[in-house]
Amino acid sequence: MQHILDGNRRWVASKLAEDPDYFQKLAVGQKPRYLFIGCSDSRVPGSAITGTAPGEMFTHRNIANVVVNTDLNLLSVLQYAVEVLEVKIILVVGHYGCGGVAAAASNKQYGLIDNWLTNVRDVVRLHETELLRIADPKLRMRRLVELNVIEQVRNLAKTNIIQNAMRGANPPILHGLVYDLADGLLKDLEVDNSTFADLQHIYGTEAPEEEATAATPVAEASAPFIAEEDSSAYEGPKHDPVQGIPASLAE
Amino acid sequence: MQHILDGNRRWVASKLAEDPDYFQKLAVGQKPRYLFIGCSDSRVPGSAITGTAPGEMFTHRNIANVVVNTDLNLLSVLQYAVEVLEVKIILVVGHYGCGGVAAAASNKQYGLIDNWLTNVRDVVRLHETELLRIADPKLRMRRLVELNVIEQVRNLAKTNIIQNAMRGANPPILHGLVYDLADGLLKDLEVDNSTFADLQHIYGTEAPEEEATAATPVAEASAPFIAEEDSSAYEGPKHDPVQGIPASLAE
Amino acid sequence: MQHILDGNRRWVASKLAEDPDYFQKLAVGQKPRYLFIGCSDSRVPGSAITGTAPGEMFTHRNIANVVVNTDLNLLSVLQYAVEVLEVKIILVVGHYGCGGVAAAASNKQYGLIDNWLTNVRDVVRLHETELLRIADPKLRMRRLVELNVIEQVRNLAKTNIIQNAMRGANPPILHGLVYDLADGLLKDLEVDNSTFADLQHIYGTEAPEEEATAATPVAEASAPFIAEEDSSAYEGPKHDPVQGIPASLAE
Amino acid sequence: MQHILDGNRRWVASKLAEDPDYFQKLAVGQKPRYLFIGCSDSRVPGSAITGTAPGEMFTHRNIANVVVNTDLNLLSVLQYAVEVLEVKIILVVGHYGCGGVAAAASNKQYGLIDNWLTNVRDVVRLHETELLRIADPKLRMRRLVELNVIEQVRNLAKTNIIQNAMRGANPPILHGLVYDLADGLLKDLEVDNSTFADLQHIYGTEAPEEEATAATPVAEASAPFIAEEDSSAYEGPKHDPVQGIPASLAE
Repeated sequence: MQHILDGNRRWVASKLAEDPDYFQKLAVGQKPRYLFIGCSDSRVPGSAITGTAPGEMFTHRNIANVVVNTDLNLLSVLQYAVEVLEVKIILVVGHYGCGGVAAAASNKQYGLIDNWLTNVRDVVRLHETELLRIADPKLRMRRLVELNVIEQVRNLAKTNIIQNAMRGANPPILHGLVYDLADGLLKDLEVDNSTFADLQHIYGTEAPEEEATAATPVAEASAPFIAEEDSSAYEGPKHDPVQGIPASLAE
Repeated sequence: MQHILDGNRRWVASKLAEDPDYFQKLAVGQKPRYLFIGCSDSRVPGSAITGTAPGEMFTHRNIANVVVNTDLNLLSVLQYAVEVLEVKIILVVGHYGCGGVAAAASNKQYGLIDNWLTNVRDVVRLHETELLRIADPKLRMRRLVELNVIEQVRNLAKTNIIQNAMRGANPPILHGLVYDLADGLLKDLEVDNSTFADLQHIYGTEAPEEEATAATPVAEASAPFIAEEDSSAYEGPKHDPVQGIPASLAE
Repeated sequence: MQHILDGNRRWVASKLAEDPDYFQKLAVGQKPRYLFIGCSDSRVPGSAITGTAPGEMFTHRNIANVVVNTDLNLLSVLQYAVEVLEVKIILVVGHYGCGGVAAAASNKQYGLIDNWLTNVRDVVRLHETELLRIADPKLRMRRLVELNVIEQVRNLAKTNIIQNAMRGANPPILHGLVYDLADGLLKDLEVDNSTFADLQHIYGTEAPEEEATAATPVAEASAPFIAEEDSSAYEGPKHDPVQGIPASLAE
Repeated sequence: MQHILDGNRRWVASKLAEDPDYFQKLAVGQKPRYLFIGCSDSRVPGSAITGTAPGEMFTHRNIANVVVNTDLNLLSVLQYAVEVLEVKIILVVGHYGCGGVAAAASNKQYGLIDNWLTNVRDVVRLHETELLRIADPKLRMRRLVELNVIEQVRNLAKTNIIQNAMRGANPPILHGLVYDLADGLLKDLEVDNSTFADLQHIYGTEAPEEEATAATPVAEASAPFIAEEDSSAYEGPKHDPVQGIPASLAE
């Protein structure tokens, strides 16, 4: 522990040497431009590898930088970052040589974490064809790391938090990056809107008010996967609308 | 509330009329044969629709009978049912006309639950080709209900709880069923081991002890998706084994 | 499995004997009056023990009927039941002889479920003084089962779902009940609003719109635990309001 | 984004200037000594404020540095860090001026995150008497930040992961720290074993094997809160042991 406290003292001294008011300025409040979602791996400290200063990057780190759509830990970070702090850019950052991804590609059990790693195995399943085309196992693993990042960016885009923010005044931009332990460089996977557009007909949703507003044209991409009049009627007569239950949920 | 208490009194009276020792016998302990994972829908009470008596069926019910691999609520139910109670049969029971599945197939937002329903949208994504082949939207929705059940059974099979139990003395049997609100009948989807076998090379894992036992032949299906010697070395020289880190996790 | 299918057939036959249109009527839609949150224990099937019919009771069951405030499984059930289905009455139903509560009161490990049972141990901690006053261990355990139910009802009342519904046109009523395996009877713990009122100054929250409405007097009970002007300024000068960050979150 | 990539390039250049083999060495593997659990706040980057280098600190960051005992995200980080990486020291690091803690002490709703913040309100409830004794609201808030850290360290100690590691060959040491935005200094809250000892009779558990080993004396502190022979018999005669159900769970 003394190592930690000493390191802290050195860091404070170095900051004060640069700017005697450094901490007073920071204590005023945060207005980070970035949300960083990265791996817990000790070799991938987000602010160091991106050269960002304290105050610039709101951060969540977990094993294998996974975005689980029912994980209230990450969802709280995301909702707060997007809706309250209004971050401009969201980065999902994986890294080649990720132990979590490697464990998911292995057939070993490591205990409770196996449940978490299932999320990465789901990426393997979705992209098995592409992965199997890569004969070199090292390159195949690198591609899995990249595909894992791309799918986690997609998982962000599946949330109503992001979908609503995308229709707001300042839509955040989502990026997928991979950090290479071997040379320290970040590689932009160039995930862009087309990454989500091809799944929008499945995951795209509209907030209730938006539908009601004639001025807001409902994008074609957000058409329901199965039309409501059909979905609500398929196993019997329509229920009494007096009951006030939304038809698509009331069956 | 009086309605509930009255209903309870009537039920107690009817049970005592059948057997004056009914409750004393039940209070001795539970040894359920079944684990039932079903929908929260009020029209699908598990024990009623299966004609099972109190004591027969350990039960978890959530919206759209979803098995999320990082949901400690359901995982606790599953681990306790399989490892402590040693249930013999696990049933995932969906139902045609499921409001949760219909909501997931729509493009509407319903609030916090949207996050949960992403799990069903993931089923749509996995089986989009098959679903699009079904022109009739009512039939397409029915098929989605079935596919959702099948994928949730698969999600069970992805857990180390089930995988280890499958190699134990009394492997549980997994079933997927759909209940039809229109006629009250349960339909067996005939999910069997082949439902998991085709994904075993991705999700299959072995407990550490099992690997070490020469007497336990490691099934071919549990070979790693990417061989360890490759996964651990792909971005640089192998680390010093003195460090004692499992190679596949240490990168 | 045949046992399940046979039981289902018998049940369908008995229902059709009572009313040939039974299933057509039910398939029209659900409008349940109750949300039942109970234990997974096989001996506590919610609809049977309450004498309620299919269609009356939306249901969630987990180990030891626990309400975890970050559990998206239960929160989704709750939000859907309260906001979409507009249930009138919410029942948390524990039972004497609960294996989960007994396990939490023991010092044994059962695996992954230990994490879940920590929620019950937290109830022990909150009520240790009262529990220790009960010399008879059987009675002490019965009281723990009751206190667990009461705390889970409180956990419901902590959610913004319930807090907002309580200020709506049709506030749901929360009840805590214990089922006695030994005689089949449900006991009402008579949890009422005072159960929450004493914690309202800690957990009470207001939706943003409500605050703004002068017509909605903010109840005294919802005063902040620490006043905002103090909470936001304590470690430095107030940040620039131009940044548009809510003061209490921006520090 | 270019800002991020530029910052990354500058960082790589500075590292290579110090040591041309810097990245090759790091890529070999990680063997972090620390697990850092901190807040997502952009002003509290863990490795910077502790002056630790890449490779030293495995990291999880969420809103208000909360340890939820049913959060598979954090539990996976913890299990992997403790059991696979065998970290020596676990740090829970809060910070004065934490927006999450301030939000929890307010009576405002912020959306989905409200559910997460309930964890901090639970800390207020546990320590209300102490907090109310502090008249100055700024000091009261600072104390809440500290108490939140202490309770999160306790939440770690409640897990079977930590409890089992504590009985292992290399028990990890748990520390609670608070970072002060106003001066950059880390303060050690001097949480030590007595912090857990007073709750051990409630949360202490033993793995099954340990109990069986006569050589391992079961510490008095791990006696069950309610003795098993009482807990298992209180609502009826003991069940038939032939059924093979552990008595304390079988009721």
